[in-house]
Amino acid sequence: MGIQKSSMNFGIMAPGPKNLISDVPGVKVGHVTLADGPIQTGVTAIIPGSGSAFRDKFPAAVHVINGFGKSIGLMQIQELGTLETPILLTNTFSVGACFEGLLTYMLDSHPEIGTTTGTVNPVVTECNDSYLNDIRSRHVRPQDALQALQNAASTFEEGSVGAGRGMRCYGYKGGIGSASRTMMIDDTSYTVGALLLTNFGAKGDLIIQGKHISEELEGEADKGSCIIVLATDVPLSCQQLSRCARRAQNGLARTGSFTGNGSGEVVIMFSTANRIPHSSHSGICSGHYLHETGMDVLFRAVTECVEEGVISSLFHATTVTGIDGHTARALRSGLSER
Amino acid sequence: MGIQKSSMNFGIMAPGPKNLISDVPGVKVGHVTLADGPIQTGVTAIIPGSGSAFRDKFPAAVHVINGFGKSIGLMQIQELGTLETPILLTNTFSVGACFEGLLTYMLDSHPEIGTTTGTVNPVVTECNDSYLNDIRSRHVRPQDALQALQNAASTFEEGSVGAGRGMRCYGYKGGIGSASRTMMIDDTSYTVGALLLTNFGAKGDLIIQGKHISEELEGEADKGSCIIVLATDVPLSCQQLSRCARRAQNGLARTGSFTGNGSGEVVIMFSTANRIPHSSHSGICSGHYLHETGMDVLFRAVTECVEEGVISSLFHATTVTGIDGHTARALRSGLSER
Amino acid sequence: MGIQKSSMNFGIMAPGPKNLISDVPGVKVGHVTLADGPIQTGVTAIIPGSGSAFRDKFPAAVHVINGFGKSIGLMQIQELGTLETPILLTNTFSVGACFEGLLTYMLDSHPEIGTTTGTVNPVVTECNDSYLNDIRSRHVRPQDALQALQNAASTFEEGSVGAGRGMRCYGYKGGIGSASRTMMIDDTSYTVGALLLTNFGAKGDLIIQGKHISEELEGEADKGSCIIVLATDVPLSCQQLSRCARRAQNGLARTGSFTGNGSGEVVIMFSTANRIPHSSHSGICSGHYLHETGMDVLFRAVTECVEEGVISSLFHATTVTGIDGHTARALRSGLSER
Amino acid sequence: MGIQKSSMNFGIMAPGPKNLISDVPGVKVGHVTLADGPIQTGVTAIIPGSGSAFRDKFPAAVHVINGFGKSIGLMQIQELGTLETPILLTNTFSVGACFEGLLTYMLDSHPEIGTTTGTVNPVVTECNDSYLNDIRSRHVRPQDALQALQNAASTFEEGSVGAGRGMRCYGYKGGIGSASRTMMIDDTSYTVGALLLTNFGAKGDLIIQGKHISEELEGEADKGSCIIVLATDVPLSCQQLSRCARRAQNGLARTGSFTGNGSGEVVIMFSTANRIPHSSHSGICSGHYLHETGMDVLFRAVTECVEEGVISSLFHATTVTGIDGHTARALRSGLSER
Repeated sequence: MGIQKSSMNFGIMAPGPKNLISDVPGVKVGHVTLADGPIQTGVTAIIPGSGSAFRDKFPAAVHVINGFGKSIGLMQIQELGTLETPILLTNTFSVGACFEGLLTYMLDSHPEIGTTTGTVNPVVTECNDSYLNDIRSRHVRPQDALQALQNAASTFEEGSVGAGRGMRCYGYKGGIGSASRTMMIDDTSYTVGALLLTNFGAKGDLIIQGKHISEELEGEADKGSCIIVLATDVPLSCQQLSRCARRAQNGLARTGSFTGNGSGEVVIMFSTANRIPHSSHSGICSGHYLHETGMDVLFRAVTECVEEGVISSLFHATTVTGIDGHTARALRSGLSER
Repeated sequence: MGIQKSSMNFGIMAPGPKNLISDVPGVKVGHVTLADGPIQTGVTAIIPGSGSAFRDKFPAAVHVINGFGKSIGLMQIQELGTLETPILLTNTFSVGACFEGLLTYMLDSHPEIGTTTGTVNPVVTECNDSYLNDIRSRHVRPQDALQALQNAASTFEEGSVGAGRGMRCYGYKGGIGSASRTMMIDDTSYTVGALLLTNFGAKGDLIIQGKHISEELEGEADKGSCIIVLATDVPLSCQQLSRCARRAQNGLARTGSFTGNGSGEVVIMFSTANRIPHSSHSGICSGHYLHETGMDVLFRAVTECVEEGVISSLFHATTVTGIDGHTARALRSGLSER
Repeated sequence: MGIQKSSMNFGIMAPGPKNLISDVPGVKVGHVTLADGPIQTGVTAIIPGSGSAFRDKFPAAVHVINGFGKSIGLMQIQELGTLETPILLTNTFSVGACFEGLLTYMLDSHPEIGTTTGTVNPVVTECNDSYLNDIRSRHVRPQDALQALQNAASTFEEGSVGAGRGMRCYGYKGGIGSASRTMMIDDTSYTVGALLLTNFGAKGDLIIQGKHISEELEGEADKGSCIIVLATDVPLSCQQLSRCARRAQNGLARTGSFTGNGSGEVVIMFSTANRIPHSSHSGICSGHYLHETGMDVLFRAVTECVEEGVISSLFHATTVTGIDGHTARALRSGLSER
Repeated sequence: MGIQKSSMNFGIMAPGPKNLISDVPGVKVGHVTLADGPIQTGVTAIIPGSGSAFRDKFPAAVHVINGFGKSIGLMQIQELGTLETPILLTNTFSVGACFEGLLTYMLDSHPEIGTTTGTVNPVVTECNDSYLNDIRSRHVRPQDALQALQNAASTFEEGSVGAGRGMRCYGYKGGIGSASRTMMIDDTSYTVGALLLTNFGAKGDLIIQGKHISEELEGEADKGSCIIVLATDVPLSCQQLSRCARRAQNGLARTGSFTGNGSGEVVIMFSTANRIPHSSHSGICSGHYLHETGMDVLFRAVTECVEEGVISSLFHATTVTGIDGHTARALRSGLSER
């Protein structure tokens, strides 16, 4: 196979040590993978940082590139600019099960929720893996969500794992991809990281580093979706996070996407700086923020991480056969055949 | 008691025959009420019209007045401008169970979903009833959602029923309220209807027909939420439905709301005209639409229906005692004591 | 006349000493009024605070209640969350002249704009005064905008002055109205103020303190517009200012508005705290912000100020006769006749 | 020079006969170019179709990719979904002059505006050409806007002309670029066209057909802007036009943009089908619309047109020297030197 990930550069910025979203200190990722004949699906959990996300919330933003999707929890992030739970990724029909599991996780560790304080906003995102997975049977259970949360660690696999088990991308096997970029601001090093669940694109459209990979002209319709989670330790307001999140579309476009009608593409970005206490103290707080004129390096980092995250999901994915004998080939196998 | 609903007028337009959202032809509403000591909650289902909402979708729009809430299904309505399932209302922690129930309802009746066509977008909205209800124990089950859908009819109860069982509004017992207005366009009679789940406001703020009801200055914080579902048979585009939905805030404001930080207020509006086939035929379709200059009568109808819907929920609610002996008094009892 | 402004209360919060937007320290307002037969128009300028708004920007937000309008400068406020010029109000066809005048004002005082740094974002808002004013002849000139800026002071007139000269509201003479509210946060007193340019509503819809004023059922269509400028010295992020701005609709609704199709209603809110340097230093800055749980007092203040601002514009307005002999009667004269 | 425009393909769809926005029937473009020493600027006018845009409006939508800009007229398009004037493009400080010119154009041809009907919403967009042009002196006058409108024709120049005279893109001379794509729907041929005013990007970022052109790593900051006007004769609702407009970002990203903080990027798209009468008839109208499942071909066309439009602006631009001896080299000259 001619193309090696290690020999590729996506942009000009330096990646973090693992080139994963977990290069942002505190961010952890865990998978539960269900792979058994027609059952090819799973859950991926992203823990945004140490301690309770509910008691010390993360500044956050959402950007909807194409809202053909069924995620839950986005509206409150948009309103309040905060993330107060881990983020789960799963298949479209398992949003309910993962909501239950994540809610259990939050209630068990927070007796105040729903009693002495208000409720909590679980965030669950999804893509449709019905080509490979028996999605109608809803095999993901709340316990799987809890397990994915427990599995979270600062190193994790990419490819055909977790929520990515049954996903396809550009006609190849897609799934989980991740990347990171580092930058210096005021003599301090900061990181931006991305984790993607890739499930979009037609084969003929795939571009890797400027080159079309397939000779197919178009392929089948761009159905599916892409979930993009972005993390950073740069102190950013929710408005600034929202501006960053909008740059994710650039990264997708560079891999060949024209953002198909049926592809639900949703971006969630959070910062681990400036955590905001839940407590009902209603006075004046202080924070620190990047000056707006310094945003360009973030915008570039997001663009680069997302482009690399898509390609990384393809490079790490292994061939999977699922329901009705449907198979999604790994890009690596496809390339080696050429 | 000095004030009778029958003697009140909210605005200048004529209500439909039932003064309910189900005056819009085809709209049906069903409740499941769970009332047993500390369990005071339920589910309310709104069926937007006859036939399959998935195969013949309803033009629809969402407006978020204050996004402090956990509803699911709104994003896709905003993107595509269509509603493809019934709408469920419940308590905050039962969104997952209702998602499961509504998904089962859709999958059972649509074998093509998740097999020969894409997925489906279940719409579930919620308010926090934890003052009266043991919300942490999640007593609503998927079966309750299915039952509420089965119970749907063109007449239905208002007040402390269904999802409204455990809700409070302006310090009194809130819950389900509904109203409708009729109008003539091009010599044809049309209807706008509203159904509200009211769970917001502090006692001192309540205004009925311009008069403050309580002498309390402020009362406790405005926590809670309000879900507003609007229906019409006027042919409106999703852009026009969005414009109408934004007028719901006027109705809430006239009952005294200043739209508190903790009050998640969400509006969904659909039209029963111009249903849009799911089928993948990708050619040119025809439709009919109200000219923009005729929108004012809709805007007035929405404002009036929402104001009356809030007050109607209060007038129909009965006193409920729930978890920890918490009681929410009916407005009627409160008024009769004065 | 039965109703005196001094005897009216809009809500429960205390106004500032002048009950004007200029109770927010540093805010100044100036008018230029053109009143000569068919010419009944003008310019109102709001200076958000001392020093250069360009070199030290004001956190700001925009909320569009109904975007039937021709304002300029709103998009950049929405993107960057900052206001960098004074705000001008005028008639619809004089936006160009006021843009020119405001640009001259900024260029004359900032030689760096368009040379060593980027450009500047002038903010000009408008309502249509064509019922009273010969709007097609565009009598407002850039010099009038400059003069309004020069006239700015911490006390100013309300009613048929400045941009309000030719406006109508609820069938009466409208124009400029203002109000303020004070609050204690962490033992410090803060202020919220509103300035409105009122030009909306049909006579039959006007409600003052819960009472319909006219016996007309409906009156003519709700055309026109309403510009609402809100100021505060509470330290708020642009996201928080956006949330506050959305509450302005509550105030309008309480005066009877159902937000007519033809009524362009735009809200701009800025904070005088946390001014943000233009300088291209791109590092980390610090700021202070109200905790989200303290927002309710702001939401209430905005609602009260906007309701009172509408009524204050009506109470201060004097009868004006303009083009084609059209007359808009002062509300005070209308009331005294009853 | 190694790369010829004629030998390049951007995507897989066929262009229209002129490969210009004016391949959409009825669309015309006119320029006025001011080129005299330090004055290097101009106006470009886009006439959306035959007859009066005011009396028969065009369905339209706006998408703001990055709102660092000073355009006027966008808010009303977003609210009502209609375009009712031609679109002008110019430099940032000439928005006022072009507003005046376009308003004169509309008032002269429509005696009803501001008298028997409401006002009109002139649309003027801009980029900052201050590197080459003496922008502070505001040399564009209202008469230039009128002249550009008069010059409008179905063929027009690209490159360093009209509003593009003083613009730079990716460190080279930018300006006006255009492209089109054709498609078959229900056996009828339709067209999508784009016209861009390119003024963004750093030299090191430029990508043409997947290849980096410069060996510079980064170049100076991405300041400037990009205005994108999209036209089609496919019958689309304003919601659908909005969805298409969001795909323009894909085209920019493929040329190397990461959407810099200082780059105001605004998309306006209109359809020439389903024109909507201004008349105050407020009844039910009919229209026809593409089914949502047919949108992908539009999304691809927009992506391709915008990518090609950027590159076309670079290929057509000629070297320009302006204020303070600043020079922007044509890409063609840069390539031929290599």
